Amino acid sequence: MPLPTESGRPVLTTNIVVFTLRDEQLKLLLIRRRNAPFEGCWSLPGGVVGTDEDVEANAMRKLEDSTGLSGIYLEQLYTFSAPERDPRERVISVAYYALVASKRLQLRTDADSEGVGWFSLNELPELAFDHAQMVDTAHQRLAAKLDYSTIAFQFMPELFTLSDLQNVFQIILNRDLDKRNFRKRMRAMEQIRQTSQVQKTGSHRPARLYRVNNPHEVRIIK
Amino acid sequence: MPLPTESGRPVLTTNIVVFTLRDEQLKLLLIRRRNAPFEGCWSLPGGVVGTDEDVEANAMRKLEDSTGLSGIYLEQLYTFSAPERDPRERVISVAYYALVASKRLQLRTDADSEGVGWFSLNELPELAFDHAQMVDTAHQRLAAKLDYSTIAFQFMPELFTLSDLQNVFQIILNRDLDKRNFRKRMRAMEQIRQTSQVQKTGSHRPARLYRVNNPHEVRIIK
Repeated sequence: MPLPTESGRPVLTTNIVVFTLRDEQLKLLLIRRRNAPFEGCWSLPGGVVGTDEDVEANAMRKLEDSTGLSGIYLEQLYTFSAPERDPRERVISVAYYALVASKRLQLRTDADSEGVGWFSLNELPELAFDHAQMVDTAHQRLAAKLDYSTIAFQFMPELFTLSDLQNVFQIILNRDLDKRNFRKRMRAMEQIRQTSQVQKTGSHRPARLYRVNNPHEVRIIK
Repeated sequence: MPLPTESGRPVLTTNIVVFTLRDEQLKLLLIRRRNAPFEGCWSLPGGVVGTDEDVEANAMRKLEDSTGLSGIYLEQLYTFSAPERDPRERVISVAYYALVASKRLQLRTDADSEGVGWFSLNELPELAFDHAQMVDTAHQRLAAKLDYSTIAFQFMPELFTLSDLQNVFQIILNRDLDKRNFRKRMRAMEQIRQTSQVQKTGSHRPARLYRVNNPHEVRIIK
């Protein structure tokens, strides 16, 4: 079958969903659009992929251009392609996501954005295009990943209590977890191990300190 | 930023990786290409997405057209977009995957294919384009999914032994599993429950029969 003529082809773009933990909240990186459509609206960073450009390289470049965040390991999330998702014409977007440590927080805008910032997932502004759906998909993927990866451990110091770890899980999942089930599950994961040290905390019974078993494997998503 | 002119746009296609279990093997659905490029070569089903067509709908339609398999629930796998992946020009492919029960095995060819068949993952012919990479990615996803989904249970009868279940896992993972660890993990998953019945098998000690806890949740990938 011959390839279609150029008039039948979509525009290829990327979008990037970047999460961080800050102030005990899961936060999301958004930029404010300078141009139509959705002028002045908050949206995910991203842009059009060049003719010979690698899609992931494009996503990293667009993220750096519009926010200043560089060197972030991105994972492909999902390709959004509903025919009507862009009011202009058919535009498909390969979405990526990342969870970054909160130290990397220096942001800046570029020619396409007139604002950039971290927003709590619980207090998001209205988003351009189908970006709210992208955020939902990324949050679901992140939550699922907690169960079978070491993604949460990058937010832990070298030694931590199970309460600290449960707190990080609860922030990412945005719900409370049962303490007993959580501890049982973490011990079954075999990704952390108990140390001989405890954390002395005032009047409470000292809490046992844990460490990650294979720290070099932790940064699946840096 | 304006959208690019039509000459800078890629062709949008889909490809579908369909697995089944048959003859104690994990098998893959391939079609033999009738046309250039890679004329006569085996490849994954798929094709060009129409201007206003939904990408997933296209994947289902192409799968049905080229193989006769219909009504299969597809899950998006990954978007392949390396600039040189098609010798003609830039073609990006949104790949989907599915694991189907082996009853659905009636296949047929269409105008674009001159052969269709199930191939053992251990004895694949050389594949067109980057389809070998797509198959690897799909197999990895499938294997990862065994750990946190009910994907394997669709291949089990109503009552089954833990040995039967381990056998299905081993076929999908293509390696032997430690019996004791496997049983421990399955019981921790809480997706199956022990029944009061046993399977009587000749001279062996009778084996306990299990059933799936929530059969209606099993068919994540039909």
